[in-house]
Amino acid sequence: MTTPLFVGLDVGGTSMKAGVVDDSGKPLGSISVATEAHRGQAFGIERMCEAIRKAATAAGVSMGDIAAIGVATPGTMDIPAGLILDPPNLKPWRNVPVRDHIHNVFQIPTAFQNDANAAAFGEFWAGAGKDAHSMVLFTLGTGVGGGIIIGDLVLEGEHSHGAELGHMKIEMTNPRQCGCGRWGCLEAYGSATAVVKRATETLAQEGVNSTLTTLQIAAGGLTARHVFEAASAGDPIADKIVEDTAYYLAIGAVNMMHTIDPDMVVFAGGMVAAGESFLQRIRKHVKELAFPVPAERTRINYAQLGSDAGFIGAAACGRKLFREKKQKG
Amino acid sequence: MTTPLFVGLDVGGTSMKAGVVDDSGKPLGSISVATEAHRGQAFGIERMCEAIRKAATAAGVSMGDIAAIGVATPGTMDIPAGLILDPPNLKPWRNVPVRDHIHNVFQIPTAFQNDANAAAFGEFWAGAGKDAHSMVLFTLGTGVGGGIIIGDLVLEGEHSHGAELGHMKIEMTNPRQCGCGRWGCLEAYGSATAVVKRATETLAQEGVNSTLTTLQIAAGGLTARHVFEAASAGDPIADKIVEDTAYYLAIGAVNMMHTIDPDMVVFAGGMVAAGESFLQRIRKHVKELAFPVPAERTRINYAQLGSDAGFIGAAACGRKLFREKKQKG
Repeated sequence: MTTPLFVGLDVGGTSMKAGVVDDSGKPLGSISVATEAHRGQAFGIERMCEAIRKAATAAGVSMGDIAAIGVATPGTMDIPAGLILDPPNLKPWRNVPVRDHIHNVFQIPTAFQNDANAAAFGEFWAGAGKDAHSMVLFTLGTGVGGGIIIGDLVLEGEHSHGAELGHMKIEMTNPRQCGCGRWGCLEAYGSATAVVKRATETLAQEGVNSTLTTLQIAAGGLTARHVFEAASAGDPIADKIVEDTAYYLAIGAVNMMHTIDPDMVVFAGGMVAAGESFLQRIRKHVKELAFPVPAERTRINYAQLGSDAGFIGAAACGRKLFREKKQKG
Repeated sequence: MTTPLFVGLDVGGTSMKAGVVDDSGKPLGSISVATEAHRGQAFGIERMCEAIRKAATAAGVSMGDIAAIGVATPGTMDIPAGLILDPPNLKPWRNVPVRDHIHNVFQIPTAFQNDANAAAFGEFWAGAGKDAHSMVLFTLGTGVGGGIIIGDLVLEGEHSHGAELGHMKIEMTNPRQCGCGRWGCLEAYGSATAVVKRATETLAQEGVNSTLTTLQIAAGGLTARHVFEAASAGDPIADKIVEDTAYYLAIGAVNMMHTIDPDMVVFAGGMVAAGESFLQRIRKHVKELAFPVPAERTRINYAQLGSDAGFIGAAACGRKLFREKKQKG
């Protein structure tokens, strides 16, 4: 090998994905295995090591070829300590010293990062933000996650709470309750869950006539995809919900443009399936809400790496650590 | 001189303040002169040079003792270009190449920065944030300004719109119009102007009985100070306005705690005269609104440098430039 290789591991509540990534951000091979958090954290850590080894095998390299590892996990954590604290979707894991354990097993530099921060760093390195100097990423799924990259800095924050973009407050008068239990958070407006909730509320109103009603009955419940598809097909109720969602996300983007002022705002996650027309709606609202200069110059795009962003970004964290160690000698 | 000295210049709409600052952030002498922007930008730049020279004289040093200069100005600007664009409170100045001009006159490294960013950097270097690794500063006055410092990084943004904290949107349903012409901005809720506006609106309601009414008539109009003083004296109407203001500012702080996640949030500007009880109210709301870890650990304090923060921070920008040049050789 002429250039160093890195393994990135992205641990999720259901599955974990690991891949080998070269020095330019290109994945050479990746695998996915079930997380099975319910089997406990000792099992979980063993599964992580297994995923890392399998990724090397999938890429046709040996662990001896790997210069560094990066691990990304969801939920509450202490990033500098390399510690998973108490993540709701990895129960019953608690206070798991992930970084040190994996470092002990493989004896190569091992970085640790929040999964949304890692995804942002992946897109920044090898995806939508490849030519940007700074980037804010919103991940739209069950919740709204985020990552902020400024130059070489992944904005972790001092208490590992940096870029919790779903939990900026955007409404005071009539705030919706968020999944976090607090009120008025962006996530309560702009997540896929929030789209479904608002659609369901609207359909429950008397006299509402929408093709969504049929979908709701046929599918035994709505998904965000139903709402976006009905909007594309011309359903005015669905269209209003999609339009409002674009507005809420534009507010989130503008709040970042007026604080971080990045080169680029990127939207990732399941909702990017809504396609170009949804992105155009977000852009239109951003233009109206933001100061003229950032409104004109900030690029607003979709992510490009899909579900690979996490492991590529985790690998990028490993690479960053490797380069820092090398520089220090 | 055994350590390098720096001149910081903080240009405001009414006056400009310049001071010599030593390598530890201590001011050795400062002066203030009228800006008189109406006399035009050639005059303005000459006045800036005069202020810089007078600061050296006041500190008992010669310009030959100065290692670098930092200049901070308000309003729209292009920070990397060292250019004032079109600041509303420096009319009729337009496209003024401040940095290059001052550099040409004195022939020493000259840094340029937004005034609120500079004030934040000053507090970070030598004031409230002296022992912090990162800090977000809100300046509360006619408007709400801001600065974000992360380690050695002054977050200018890619389009010189970083840390425009007064223009994050916190209300959608019933948004107030902001001085910037847009709607729902923090500034429309948390500035001194907003305090007066809300007080005046409340007094105009039928049947409202408040000691503020007497003040309003006696003084020919209210100030934020009237409102805070009446609240301290037990007036329930004034108290409600102060309490709401604390809540709005807490939302601003929490939004920064969930994105930047700094060590410290600092409030500066005229409204810090409201004293410790107001800060306690902000802290109480922050505790209720934020995630447990940042709520527990983020320090929320007042600024310490008063109106010196701007020139000290401008000097800090000069010092940073000087050190970068030295490092490069």
